[in-house]
Amino acid sequence: MRYCIKFAYKGTNYHGWQEQPNDVSVQSVLTEALCRILRCHVELTGAGRTDAGVHAKCMFAHFDLENSIEDLPLITNKLNSILPNDIAVDEVFPVADDFHARFSAKSRTYNYFVTTKKVPFMTEFAARFTFPLNMDAMNEAARKLLDYTDFTSFSKVHTDVKTNNCTIYHAQWEPTEYGMVFTIKANRFLRNMVRAIVGTLIEVGKGKLTVDQFCDIIEKKDRCAAGMSVPAQGLFLVDVEY
Amino acid sequence: MRYCIKFAYKGTNYHGWQEQPNDVSVQSVLTEALCRILRCHVELTGAGRTDAGVHAKCMFAHFDLENSIEDLPLITNKLNSILPNDIAVDEVFPVADDFHARFSAKSRTYNYFVTTKKVPFMTEFAARFTFPLNMDAMNEAARKLLDYTDFTSFSKVHTDVKTNNCTIYHAQWEPTEYGMVFTIKANRFLRNMVRAIVGTLIEVGKGKLTVDQFCDIIEKKDRCAAGMSVPAQGLFLVDVEY
Repeated sequence: MRYCIKFAYKGTNYHGWQEQPNDVSVQSVLTEALCRILRCHVELTGAGRTDAGVHAKCMFAHFDLENSIEDLPLITNKLNSILPNDIAVDEVFPVADDFHARFSAKSRTYNYFVTTKKVPFMTEFAARFTFPLNMDAMNEAARKLLDYTDFTSFSKVHTDVKTNNCTIYHAQWEPTEYGMVFTIKANRFLRNMVRAIVGTLIEVGKGKLTVDQFCDIIEKKDRCAAGMSVPAQGLFLVDVEY
Repeated sequence: MRYCIKFAYKGTNYHGWQEQPNDVSVQSVLTEALCRILRCHVELTGAGRTDAGVHAKCMFAHFDLENSIEDLPLITNKLNSILPNDIAVDEVFPVADDFHARFSAKSRTYNYFVTTKKVPFMTEFAARFTFPLNMDAMNEAARKLLDYTDFTSFSKVHTDVKTNNCTIYHAQWEPTEYGMVFTIKANRFLRNMVRAIVGTLIEVGKGKLTVDQFCDIIEKKDRCAAGMSVPAQGLFLVDVEY
Protein backbone atom coordinates (compact mmCIF):
# COMPACT_ATOMS: atom_id res chain seq x y z
CA MET A 1 0.00 0.00 0.00
CA ARG A 2 1.31 3.44 -0.94
CA TYR A 3 0.40 6.45 1.22
CA CYS A 4 0.94 10.15 0.80
CA ILE A 5 1.50 12.48 3.73
CA LYS A 6 0.72 16.19 3.50
CA PHE A 7 2.55 18.36 6.04
CA ALA A 8 3.97 21.80 6.86
CA TYR A 9 7.07 22.94 8.68
CA LYS A 10 8.93 25.96 9.96
CA GLY A 11 12.43 25.37 8.61
CA THR A 12 14.36 27.61 11.02
CA ASN A 13 15.74 24.76 13.12
CA TYR A 14 16.29 22.20 10.34
CA HIS A 15 19.04 21.55 7.88
CA GLY A 16 16.45 21.40 5.08
CA TRP A 17 14.14 18.57 4.08
CA GLN A 18 16.69 15.98 2.98
CA GLU A 19 18.23 13.54 5.46
CA GLN A 20 21.82 14.53 6.31
CA PRO A 21 24.48 12.46 8.09
CA ASN A 22 25.26 14.98 10.85
CA ASP A 23 22.35 17.43 10.87
CA VAL A 24 18.72 17.37 11.89
CA SER A 25 16.48 17.38 8.81
CA VAL A 26 12.69 17.45 8.50
CA GLN A 27 12.87 14.08 6.68
CA SER A 28 14.68 12.39 9.57
CA VAL A 29 12.32 13.76 12.26
CA LEU A 30 9.20 12.89 10.25
CA THR A 31 10.52 9.42 9.34
CA GLU A 32 11.28 8.68 12.98
CA ALA A 33 7.77 9.77 14.05
CA LEU A 34 6.13 7.61 11.35
CA CYS A 35 8.25 4.57 12.29
CA ARG A 36 7.30 5.02 15.95
CA ILE A 37 3.56 5.40 15.33
CA LEU A 38 3.28 2.73 12.61
CA ARG A 39 5.77 0.40 14.35
CA CYS A 40 7.58 -0.53 11.16
CA HIS A 41 10.31 0.70 8.86
CA VAL A 42 9.21 3.63 6.66
CA GLU A 43 11.10 5.37 3.88
CA LEU A 44 9.87 8.78 2.83
CA THR A 45 10.20 10.21 -0.68
CA GLY A 46 9.56 13.96 -0.69
CA ALA A 47 8.12 16.21 -3.40
CA GLY A 48 11.48 17.93 -3.57
CA ARG A 49 14.20 19.17 -1.32
CA THR A 50 14.11 22.48 0.49
CA ASP A 51 17.37 24.06 1.68
CA ALA A 52 18.34 24.70 5.28
CA GLY A 53 16.07 27.29 6.89
CA VAL A 54 13.43 27.24 4.12
CA HIS A 55 9.80 26.75 5.27
CA ALA A 56 6.96 24.71 3.76
CA LYS A 57 3.28 25.55 4.15
CA CYS A 58 2.37 22.58 1.98
CA MET A 59 4.73 19.68 1.34
CA PHE A 60 4.09 16.06 0.30
CA ALA A 61 5.96 12.77 0.66
CA HIS A 62 5.02 9.18 -0.11
CA PHE A 63 5.83 5.91 1.64
CA ASP A 64 4.97 2.22 1.24
CA LEU A 65 3.52 -0.11 3.88
CA GLU A 66 2.87 -3.84 3.85
CA ASN A 67 -0.42 -3.42 5.70
CA SER A 68 -3.04 -0.75 5.24
CA ILE A 69 -3.73 1.92 7.88
CA GLU A 70 -7.21 1.54 9.37
CA ASP A 71 -7.80 4.90 11.03
CA LEU A 72 -6.03 7.61 9.03
CA PRO A 73 -7.21 10.64 11.11
CA LEU A 74 -6.04 8.85 14.27
CA ILE A 75 -2.56 8.40 12.75
CA THR A 76 -2.50 12.11 11.85
CA ASN A 77 -3.40 13.08 15.44
CA LYS A 78 -0.83 10.70 16.90
CA LEU A 79 1.88 12.05 14.60
CA ASN A 80 1.06 15.66 15.55
CA SER A 81 1.17 14.85 19.23
CA ILE A 82 4.71 13.42 19.06
CA LEU A 83 6.16 15.73 16.39
CA PRO A 84 7.69 19.03 17.60
CA ASN A 85 5.69 22.28 17.26
CA ASP A 86 7.51 23.22 14.05
CA ILE A 87 6.28 20.22 12.01
CA ALA A 88 2.54 19.65 11.48
CA VAL A 89 0.84 16.82 9.56
CA ASP A 90 -2.33 17.87 7.70
CA GLU A 91 -3.37 14.52 6.29
CA VAL A 92 -2.29 10.96 5.51
CA PHE A 93 -4.13 9.42 2.55
CA PRO A 94 -3.84 6.34 0.29
CA VAL A 95 -2.57 6.85 -3.27
CA ALA A 96 -2.17 4.69 -6.38
CA ASP A 97 0.91 2.43 -6.53
CA ASP A 98 2.42 4.51 -9.32
CA PHE A 99 2.00 7.83 -7.49
CA HIS A 100 5.39 9.45 -6.85
CA ALA A 101 5.65 12.50 -4.57
CA ARG A 102 8.43 13.93 -6.71
CA PHE A 103 7.84 12.72 -10.27
CA SER A 104 4.02 12.93 -10.28
CA ALA A 105 4.13 16.61 -9.28
CA LYS A 106 2.91 18.87 -12.10
CA SER A 107 3.93 22.15 -10.49
CA ARG A 108 5.39 23.74 -7.39
CA THR A 109 4.68 27.21 -6.03
CA TYR A 110 6.96 29.26 -3.79
CA ASN A 111 6.53 32.54 -1.91
CA TYR A 112 9.38 34.82 -0.95
CA PHE A 113 8.60 37.42 1.74
CA VAL A 114 10.44 40.72 1.97
CA THR A 115 9.99 43.34 4.69
CA THR A 116 11.01 46.92 4.05
CA LYS A 117 11.18 47.83 7.74
CA LYS A 118 12.07 46.09 11.01
CA VAL A 119 9.16 43.79 11.90
CA PRO A 120 9.48 41.84 15.20
CA PHE A 121 7.03 39.13 14.05
CA MET A 122 8.71 38.43 10.70
CA THR A 123 12.35 37.95 11.72
CA GLU A 124 12.16 34.21 11.03
CA PHE A 125 9.79 34.47 8.05
CA ALA A 126 11.12 37.20 5.77
CA ALA A 127 14.28 38.91 4.54
CA ARG A 128 14.59 42.58 5.48
CA PHE A 129 15.84 45.10 2.92
CA THR A 130 16.23 48.65 4.13
CA PHE A 131 16.76 50.29 0.71
CA PRO A 132 13.80 51.43 -1.47
CA LEU A 133 12.58 48.84 -4.01
CA ASN A 134 10.76 49.66 -7.26
CA MET A 135 8.11 46.92 -7.38
CA ASP A 136 6.91 47.90 -10.88
CA ALA A 137 10.40 47.36 -12.31
CA MET A 138 10.69 44.07 -10.40
CA ASN A 139 7.38 42.91 -11.89
CA GLU A 140 8.39 43.95 -15.40
CA ALA A 141 11.54 41.82 -15.06
CA ALA A 142 9.62 38.96 -13.40
CA ARG A 143 7.26 38.76 -16.40
CA LYS A 144 10.30 38.17 -18.64
CA LEU A 145 10.96 34.88 -16.80
CA LEU A 146 7.96 33.41 -18.65
CA ASP A 147 9.74 33.93 -22.00
CA TYR A 148 12.65 31.62 -21.13
CA THR A 149 13.14 27.94 -20.30
CA ASP A 150 16.88 27.51 -19.61
CA PHE A 151 17.63 28.85 -16.13
CA THR A 152 21.27 27.80 -15.80
CA SER A 153 22.07 31.34 -14.64
CA PHE A 154 19.92 30.80 -11.55
CA SER A 155 21.08 27.29 -10.65
CA LYS A 156 23.69 26.05 -8.22
CA VAL A 157 26.61 24.69 -10.23
CA HIS A 158 27.59 21.00 -10.23
CA THR A 159 24.11 19.59 -9.57
CA ASP A 160 23.11 16.18 -10.88
CA VAL A 161 20.10 17.21 -13.00
CA LYS A 162 20.06 16.38 -16.72
CA THR A 163 18.65 19.68 -17.94
CA ASN A 164 18.30 23.19 -16.61
CA ASN A 165 14.98 23.68 -18.40
CA CYS A 166 11.93 24.78 -16.43
CA THR A 167 8.57 26.12 -17.49
CA ILE A 168 7.58 29.09 -15.35
CA TYR A 169 3.80 29.63 -15.23
CA HIS A 170 3.61 32.63 -12.93
CA ALA A 171 6.04 35.12 -11.39
CA GLN A 172 4.76 38.20 -9.61
CA TRP A 173 5.45 40.60 -6.74
CA GLU A 174 2.57 41.90 -4.61
CA PRO A 175 2.47 44.35 -1.68
CA THR A 176 1.91 43.00 1.86
CA GLU A 177 1.28 44.63 5.24
CA TYR A 178 5.02 44.88 5.89
CA GLY A 179 6.66 44.91 2.46
CA MET A 180 6.11 42.57 -0.46
CA VAL A 181 5.83 38.93 -1.47
CA PHE A 182 7.03 37.18 -4.64
CA THR A 183 5.01 34.24 -5.95
CA ILE A 184 6.57 31.90 -8.50
CA LYS A 185 5.02 28.74 -9.98
CA ALA A 186 6.83 26.35 -12.32
CA ASN A 187 6.79 22.72 -13.38
CA ARG A 188 10.16 22.29 -11.63
CA PHE A 189 12.86 24.35 -9.95
CA LEU A 190 16.64 24.01 -10.04
CA ARG A 191 18.64 24.07 -6.81
CA ASN A 192 18.80 27.56 -5.32
CA MET A 193 16.76 28.90 -8.27
CA VAL A 194 14.08 30.91 -6.41
CA ARG A 195 16.57 32.60 -4.10
CA ALA A 196 18.88 33.48 -7.02
CA ILE A 197 15.95 34.86 -9.07
CA VAL A 198 14.73 36.94 -6.10
CA GLY A 199 18.26 38.22 -5.45
CA THR A 200 18.58 39.33 -9.07
CA LEU A 201 15.10 40.90 -9.10
CA ILE A 202 16.07 42.83 -5.95
CA GLU A 203 18.97 44.32 -7.97
CA VAL A 204 16.37 45.43 -10.55
CA GLY A 205 14.25 46.89 -7.71
CA LYS A 206 17.25 48.84 -6.42
CA GLY A 207 17.87 50.26 -9.89
CA LYS A 208 21.23 48.49 -10.16
CA LEU A 209 20.02 46.38 -13.13
CA THR A 210 17.66 47.24 -15.99
CA VAL A 211 15.04 44.80 -17.26
CA ASP A 212 17.17 44.30 -20.41
CA GLN A 213 20.20 43.47 -18.27
CA PHE A 214 18.04 40.99 -16.33
CA CYS A 215 17.24 39.24 -19.65
CA ASP A 216 20.93 39.31 -20.63
CA ILE A 217 21.74 37.48 -17.38
CA ILE A 218 19.26 34.70 -18.21
CA GLU A 219 20.64 34.44 -21.76
CA LYS A 220 24.24 34.14 -20.56
CA LYS A 221 23.42 30.77 -18.89
CA ASP A 222 26.14 31.47 -16.35
CA ARG A 223 25.50 31.50 -12.59
CA CYS A 224 28.20 34.09 -12.03
CA ALA A 225 26.20 36.62 -14.07
CA ALA A 226 23.22 36.65 -11.68
CA GLY A 227 22.80 38.49 -8.38
CA MET A 228 23.32 37.15 -4.89
CA SER A 229 21.02 34.55 -3.39
CA VAL A 230 18.64 36.00 -0.82
CA PRO A 231 18.49 34.48 2.70
CA ALA A 232 16.60 31.22 3.28
CA GLN A 233 14.18 32.48 5.97
CA GLY A 234 12.00 34.41 3.48
CA LEU A 235 11.28 31.33 1.34
CA PHE A 236 8.14 29.17 1.66
CA LEU A 237 7.10 26.19 -0.46
CA VAL A 238 3.36 26.92 -0.58
CA ASP A 239 1.87 24.40 -3.00
CA VAL A 240 2.58 21.24 -4.99
CA GLU A 241 0.07 20.26 -7.67
CA TYR A 242 -0.43 16.66 -8.77
CA MET B 1 10.32 68.89 24.95
CA ARG B 2 7.90 65.97 24.96
CA TYR B 3 8.32 63.19 22.41
CA CYS B 4 6.22 60.18 21.50
CA ILE B 5 7.72 56.89 20.31
CA LYS B 6 5.73 54.45 18.18
CA PHE B 7 7.00 50.87 18.30
CA ALA B 8 6.13 47.17 17.96
CA TYR B 9 7.30 44.07 19.78
CA LYS B 10 7.06 40.31 19.88
CA GLY B 11 6.25 39.68 23.54
CA THR B 12 7.39 36.05 23.73
CA ASN B 13 10.63 36.77 25.57
CA TYR B 14 9.40 39.63 27.77
CA HIS B 15 7.62 39.83 31.07
CA GLY B 16 5.17 42.31 29.53
CA TRP B 17 5.55 46.04 28.90
CA GLN B 18 5.89 47.28 32.47
CA GLU B 19 9.29 47.48 34.19
CA GLN B 20 9.65 44.65 36.74
CA PRO B 21 12.28 44.30 39.48
CA ASN B 22 13.53 40.83 38.47
CA ASP B 23 12.33 40.28 34.91
CA VAL B 24 13.14 41.63 31.47
CA SER B 25 10.35 43.94 30.26
CA VAL B 26 9.92 45.81 26.98
CA GLN B 27 9.91 49.08 28.93
CA SER B 28 13.31 48.39 30.50
CA VAL B 29 14.95 47.34 27.21
CA LEU B 30 13.51 50.31 25.30
CA THR B 31 14.39 52.78 28.09
CA GLU B 32 17.96 51.52 28.16
CA ALA B 33 18.29 51.89 24.37
CA LEU B 34 16.89 55.45 24.47
CA CYS B 35 19.22 56.45 27.30
CA ARG B 36 22.19 55.06 25.39
CA ILE B 37 21.36 56.79 22.10
CA LEU B 38 20.21 60.11 23.60
CA ARG B 39 22.92 60.06 26.30
CA CYS B 40 20.62 61.21 29.07
CA HIS B 41 18.09 59.90 31.55
CA VAL B 42 14.75 59.00 29.93
CA GLU B 43 11.53 57.89 31.59
CA LEU B 44 8.94 56.20 29.39
CA THR B 45 5.18 56.34 29.99
CA GLY B 46 3.39 53.70 27.93
CA ALA B 47 -0.11 53.74 26.40
CA GLY B 48 -0.97 50.86 28.69
CA ARG B 49 0.52 47.71 30.06
CA THR B 50 0.54 44.42 28.19
CA ASP B 51 0.94 41.17 30.14
CA ALA B 52 3.84 38.76 29.84
CA GLY B 53 3.95 37.14 26.38
CA VAL B 54 1.46 39.55 24.77
CA HIS B 55 2.58 41.19 21.49
CA ALA B 56 2.13 44.73 20.18
CA LYS B 57 1.95 45.67 16.51
CA CYS B 58 1.43 49.29 17.44
CA MET B 59 2.29 50.71 20.85
CA PHE B 60 3.09 54.26 22.01
CA ALA B 61 5.02 55.80 24.88
CA HIS B 62 6.02 59.39 25.71
CA PHE B 63 9.13 60.87 27.32
CA ASP B 64 10.50 64.32 28.14
CA LEU B 65 13.88 65.76 27.16
CA GLU B 66 15.59 69.00 28.09
CA ASN B 67 16.91 69.49 24.58
CA SER B 68 15.18 68.80 21.28
CA ILE B 69 16.24 65.97 18.94
CA GLU B 70 17.62 67.31 15.67
CA ASP B 71 17.45 64.31 13.37
CA LEU B 72 14.46 62.12 14.32
CA PRO B 73 14.81 59.47 11.53
CA LEU B 74 18.48 59.04 12.49
CA ILE B 75 17.47 58.38 16.13
CA THR B 76 14.91 55.79 14.91
CA ASN B 77 17.57 54.01 12.85
CA LYS B 78 20.08 54.07 15.70
CA LEU B 79 17.50 52.66 18.12
CA ASN B 80 16.59 49.85 15.70
CA SER B 81 20.23 48.93 15.21
CA ILE B 82 20.88 48.44 18.94
CA LEU B 83 17.48 47.03 19.96
CA PRO B 84 17.03 43.24 19.68
CA ASN B 85 15.12 41.77 16.69
CA ASP B 86 11.91 41.48 18.71
CA ILE B 87 11.49 45.24 19.35
CA ALA B 88 11.18 47.68 16.42
CA VAL B 89 10.78 51.45 16.53
CA ASP B 90 8.55 52.89 13.79
CA GLU B 91 8.85 56.57 14.57
CA VAL B 92 9.88 59.16 17.15
CA PHE B 93 7.96 62.45 16.89
CA PRO B 94 7.43 65.62 18.95
CA VAL B 95 4.11 66.06 20.75
CA ALA B 96 2.41 68.83 22.75
CA ASP B 97 3.45 69.21 26.39
CA ASP B 98 0.06 67.99 27.57
CA PHE B 99 0.08 64.84 25.41
CA HIS B 100 -0.01 61.72 27.59
CA ALA B 101 0.55 58.28 26.03
CA ARG B 102 -1.95 56.71 28.43
CA PHE B 103 -4.52 59.39 29.29
CA SER B 104 -4.73 61.01 25.84
CA ALA B 105 -5.59 57.68 24.18
CA LYS B 106 -9.18 57.64 22.90
CA SER B 107 -9.30 53.93 22.11
CA ARG B 108 -7.26 50.74 21.99
CA THR B 109 -7.75 47.81 19.61
CA TYR B 110 -6.66 44.23 20.23
CA ASN B 111 -6.57 41.10 18.06
CA TYR B 112 -6.72 37.57 19.43
CA PHE B 113 -5.61 34.83 17.01
CA VAL B 114 -6.91 31.26 17.23
CA THR B 115 -5.77 28.33 15.11
CA THR B 116 -7.99 25.30 14.72
CA LYS B 117 -5.16 23.02 13.57
CA LYS B 118 -1.44 22.64 14.25
CA VAL B 119 0.34 25.46 12.40
CA PRO B 120 4.16 25.50 12.65
CA PHE B 121 4.38 29.24 11.87
CA MET B 122 1.80 30.36 14.45
CA THR B 123 3.04 28.62 17.61
CA GLU B 124 4.22 31.90 19.11
CA PHE B 125 1.39 34.01 17.67
CA ALA B 126 -1.89 32.18 18.32
CA ALA B 127 -3.66 29.83 20.71
CA ARG B 128 -4.58 26.43 19.29
CA PHE B 129 -7.98 24.91 20.00
CA THR B 130 -8.59 21.46 18.59
CA PHE B 131 -12.37 21.31 19.25
CA PRO B 132 -14.91 22.71 16.73
CA LEU B 133 -15.96 26.33 17.33
CA ASN B 134 -19.25 27.88 16.21
CA MET B 135 -18.16 31.31 15.01
CA ASP B 136 -21.73 32.52 14.43
CA ALA B 137 -22.63 31.87 18.07
CA MET B 138 -19.38 33.54 19.18
CA ASN B 139 -20.25 36.61 17.11
CA GLU B 140 -23.80 36.74 18.44
CA ALA B 141 -22.38 36.77 21.99
CA ALA B 142 -19.63 39.26 21.04
CA ARG B 143 -22.26 41.75 19.79
CA LYS B 144 -23.86 41.68 23.25
CA LEU B 145 -20.66 43.20 24.70
CA LEU B 146 -21.68 46.51 23.12
CA ASP B 147 -24.83 46.62 25.29
CA TYR B 148 -22.88 46.71 28.59
CA THR B 149 -20.39 49.04 30.30
CA ASP B 150 -19.46 47.31 33.59
CA PHE B 151 -17.02 44.49 32.85
CA THR B 152 -16.11 43.48 36.40
CA SER B 153 -16.73 39.85 35.39
CA PHE B 154 -13.82 40.03 32.94
CA SER B 155 -11.33 41.88 35.16
CA LYS B 156 -8.53 40.62 37.37
CA VAL B 157 -9.56 41.13 40.97
CA HIS B 158 -7.74 43.58 43.31
CA THR B 159 -6.63 46.05 40.65
CA ASP B 160 -6.20 49.72 41.46
CA VAL B 161 -8.67 51.19 38.94
CA LYS B 162 -11.54 53.36 40.16
CA THR B 163 -14.24 51.96 37.91
CA ASN B 164 -14.73 48.81 35.85
CA ASN B 165 -16.65 50.71 33.17
CA CYS B 166 -15.53 50.49 29.57
CA THR B 167 -17.20 51.46 26.30
CA ILE B 168 -16.75 48.76 23.71
CA TYR B 169 -17.00 50.06 20.13
CA HIS B 170 -16.39 46.87 18.17
CA ALA B 171 -16.15 43.14 18.95
CA GLN B 172 -16.09 40.61 16.11
CA TRP B 173 -14.67 37.24 15.05
CA GLU B 174 -13.51 36.72 11.46
CA PRO B 175 -12.09 33.67 9.68
CA THR B 176 -8.35 33.56 8.84
CA GLU B 177 -6.16 31.22 6.78
CA TYR B 178 -5.59 28.98 9.83
CA GLY B 179 -8.58 29.58 12.11
CA MET B 180 -10.06 32.86 13.28
CA VAL B 181 -9.23 36.24 14.75
CA PHE B 182 -11.16 38.32 17.29
CA THR B 183 -10.98 42.13 17.04
CA ILE B 184 -12.07 44.25 19.97
CA LYS B 185 -11.93 48.04 20.26
CA ALA B 186 -12.81 50.00 23.41
CA ASN B 187 -12.02 53.32 25.10
CA ARG B 188 -10.17 51.36 27.81
CA PHE B 189 -9.58 47.78 28.94
CA LEU B 190 -9.38 46.29 32.43
CA ARG B 191 -6.50 44.00 33.37
CA ASN B 192 -6.83 40.57 31.73
CA MET B 193 -10.13 41.69 30.12
CA VAL B 194 -9.53 40.64 26.48
CA ARG B 195 -8.21 37.20 27.43
CA ALA B 196 -11.13 36.61 29.83
CA ILE B 197 -13.69 37.74 27.20
CA VAL B 198 -12.09 35.49 24.56
CA GLY B 199 -12.00 32.54 27.00
CA THR B 200 -15.70 32.98 27.72
CA LEU B 201 -16.59 33.43 24.02
CA ILE B 202 -14.70 30.17 23.33
CA GLU B 203 -17.10 28.46 25.77
CA VAL B 204 -19.99 29.85 23.67
CA GLY B 205 -18.24 28.57 20.50
CA LYS B 206 -17.92 25.10 22.04
CA GLY B 207 -21.64 25.09 22.88
CA LYS B 208 -20.94 25.00 26.64
CA LEU B 209 -22.60 28.42 27.16
CA THR B 210 -25.59 30.02 25.41
CA VAL B 211 -25.63 33.69 24.42
CA ASP B 212 -28.09 34.34 27.27
CA GLN B 213 -25.72 32.69 29.74
CA PHE B 214 -22.92 34.88 28.37
CA CYS B 215 -25.04 37.97 29.19
CA ASP B 216 -25.81 36.56 32.65
CA ILE B 217 -22.07 36.31 33.31
CA ILE B 218 -21.56 39.99 32.45
CA GLU B 219 -24.52 40.99 34.63
CA LYS B 220 -23.20 39.03 37.64
CA LYS B 221 -20.18 41.38 37.86
CA ASP B 222 -18.19 38.51 39.35
CA ARG B 223 -14.89 37.29 37.83
CA CYS B 224 -15.55 33.74 39.04
CA ALA B 225 -18.59 33.53 36.76
CA ALA B 226 -16.60 33.94 33.52
CA GLY B 227 -14.57 31.37 31.58
CA MET B 228 -10.83 30.76 31.74
CA SER B 229 -8.36 33.29 30.39
CA VAL B 230 -6.86 32.22 27.07
CA PRO B 231 -3.04 32.07 26.67
CA ALA B 232 -1.06 35.28 26.18
CA GLN B 233 0.63 34.35 22.88
CA GLY B 234 -2.54 34.87 20.80
CA LEU B 235 -3.00 38.50 21.92
CA PHE B 236 -1.79 41.54 19.96
CA LEU B 237 -2.29 45.20 20.77
CA VAL B 238 -2.85 46.47 17.21
CA ASP B 239 -3.86 50.11 17.51
CA VAL B 240 -4.08 53.05 19.90
CA GLU B 241 -6.04 56.09 18.76
CA TYR B 242 -5.32 59.62 20.05
